[in-house]
Amino acid sequence: MSTPAYAAIEAKAALTPWTIERRAPGAHEVQIEIRYCGVCHSDIHQARAEWGGGIFPMVPGHEIVGEVGAVGSAVTKFKPGDRVGVGCFVDSCRECSACKEGEEQFCSSGMTATYNSLERGTQQPTYGGYSTRIVVNEDYVLRVPDSIPLDRAAPLLCAGITTYSPLRHFGVKAGDRVAVVGLGGLGHMGVKIAHAMGARVTVLSTSPSKRDDALKLGADDFAATSDKATFKKLAGQFDFILDTVAAAHDYNAYLGLLKRDGTMILVGMPDQPTPLSAGPLIMGRRRLVGSLIGGIRETQEMLDFCAEHDVASDIELISIDKINEAYERMIKGDVRYRFVIDCATF
Amino acid sequence: MSTPAYAAIEAKAALTPWTIERRAPGAHEVQIEIRYCGVCHSDIHQARAEWGGGIFPMVPGHEIVGEVGAVGSAVTKFKPGDRVGVGCFVDSCRECSACKEGEEQFCSSGMTATYNSLERGTQQPTYGGYSTRIVVNEDYVLRVPDSIPLDRAAPLLCAGITTYSPLRHFGVKAGDRVAVVGLGGLGHMGVKIAHAMGARVTVLSTSPSKRDDALKLGADDFAATSDKATFKKLAGQFDFILDTVAAAHDYNAYLGLLKRDGTMILVGMPDQPTPLSAGPLIMGRRRLVGSLIGGIRETQEMLDFCAEHDVASDIELISIDKINEAYERMIKGDVRYRFVIDCATF
Repeated sequence: MSTPAYAAIEAKAALTPWTIERRAPGAHEVQIEIRYCGVCHSDIHQARAEWGGGIFPMVPGHEIVGEVGAVGSAVTKFKPGDRVGVGCFVDSCRECSACKEGEEQFCSSGMTATYNSLERGTQQPTYGGYSTRIVVNEDYVLRVPDSIPLDRAAPLLCAGITTYSPLRHFGVKAGDRVAVVGLGGLGHMGVKIAHAMGARVTVLSTSPSKRDDALKLGADDFAATSDKATFKKLAGQFDFILDTVAAAHDYNAYLGLLKRDGTMILVGMPDQPTPLSAGPLIMGRRRLVGSLIGGIRETQEMLDFCAEHDVASDIELISIDKINEAYERMIKGDVRYRFVIDCATF
Repeated sequence: MSTPAYAAIEAKAALTPWTIERRAPGAHEVQIEIRYCGVCHSDIHQARAEWGGGIFPMVPGHEIVGEVGAVGSAVTKFKPGDRVGVGCFVDSCRECSACKEGEEQFCSSGMTATYNSLERGTQQPTYGGYSTRIVVNEDYVLRVPDSIPLDRAAPLLCAGITTYSPLRHFGVKAGDRVAVVGLGGLGHMGVKIAHAMGARVTVLSTSPSKRDDALKLGADDFAATSDKATFKKLAGQFDFILDTVAAAHDYNAYLGLLKRDGTMILVGMPDQPTPLSAGPLIMGRRRLVGSLIGGIRETQEMLDFCAEHDVASDIELISIDKINEAYERMIKGDVRYRFVIDCATF
């Protein structure tokens, strides 16, 4: 089916209208009518080939929500009209230990990304959610609970699971003190989810102007990291730090804010290594860990958790023709807190 | 009691004979006749004021074993003639959460180190095991099981617990694949203890010449890190890496050797920060952690574990007049694997 989309025709090109072909759903596949697609910072990195390479023309978008339009003959999990979502990947090998354990994001032969990837088998490029339709194997499709507004659900498929997964995996529990570093797309979800888990949440941000927003989002406290005194005042206070910042910064200073046996979780990937001292890790038996989105099972668990706790993303809805402008604003940090494309505007 | 010792009279001075005064044991104190004292690399750093400052004259030594000579009136745990040991600290506040949990090494007001520290209360300098006698509160004295030769037990009090504690704390179990980076005083204990825990142990060392020794110590495999191919060949292989190297090195390369969810444990403290990339942590949900010696309870557990599993340190026994020469050899890595001072030679 001929399907309208927006693509970067070549590396670094502005996004422009482009038409893609979506196949009819195979036996195990679900055809989704895309209603909304979140705009993730990694869309910019990939469209601009900032992570090296890239498959062009590229149709970005991996925070996809919509309704099932049609299903293949063997599909059992979904039926037309169901509210569904697709996140960062659409396939994996299903045979490695990661896949078998439901941690498909760590598939040993590499997950098939929702865009900028090659399909297993056909080796055709995958195209993402900046379009009006997508066809995905039912095992990689999520169910979006009715109580979450569809547009505000879109960013849960990446920003939501990226923050939910490590908070769960590393054991955040009610009463824990959790610091969230950076109040962007990821950070604002981290605050909402940690708060919903019963943690006492402190936002650490370079921008004192974000204090009010942080508290409205559910944070109990706010501290400006532009003030050096913050690092003395809050030394040894936190059980967990969720660090969402993708620009290079001093991990050592933040590690000092952890209690003994505390855990600092990296979900932002700076493009430069930063100097790490062993001292803050050794002197408090602290842990510096990383986390990457989440598997299908856990993503569904996250969506259900968000429904139960009335958690959804704070978004700014845009028409697709504003996408290049949105990219520029995101680079300046000028979005509260996620752009979401209204796919009725294609 | 006037007690012979060796001291660095001032920062960076060679060690020379010096006489210290040891008090008669108080009600809760144990007077220990020191038989042997291990020589830890940190003795050199402190005697040479390489970690900044230091209390001089300084009598180093925190791998102390001997026999109880006398006990205070209220002592219940020890009697004269008992085989005992003292490790890196001789006191702590006993009131903070760390002390109450038996993690005195993380005492919030600072443990009282066995040397180069000030006693709680009197504020007198502490003097370590390069001497023939020491007086320590019974709660900070360990029992050395009969089956461990006393001279080979000395290094367990620092090198032994430094490696045992994280292997236990972070959950090494039989069948796990454990890499030990660096085959020095710490590394050789790490190999023996991990092997005794039932792990499959690989030694990673810059020196191919250490292969035979590694296998004799209990390693199952050896790989030279001077060969770049090692990092490709062993990528994703290990559940744990115990990194004992105190010189700056590339953590990122080693992190790539961990399986998903693997843990790299730092026990060596380079004096310079090294560049860390978030990628290897995020892409495998890996953990980079630190660990610092161990508490009194766990140190006793380690000694009992070593007795049960026939583990002791490989040592080179020296007379105290060879201590400066021993320091020079240690700096060159020329010791297999720990110098131990015979305190009968004072």
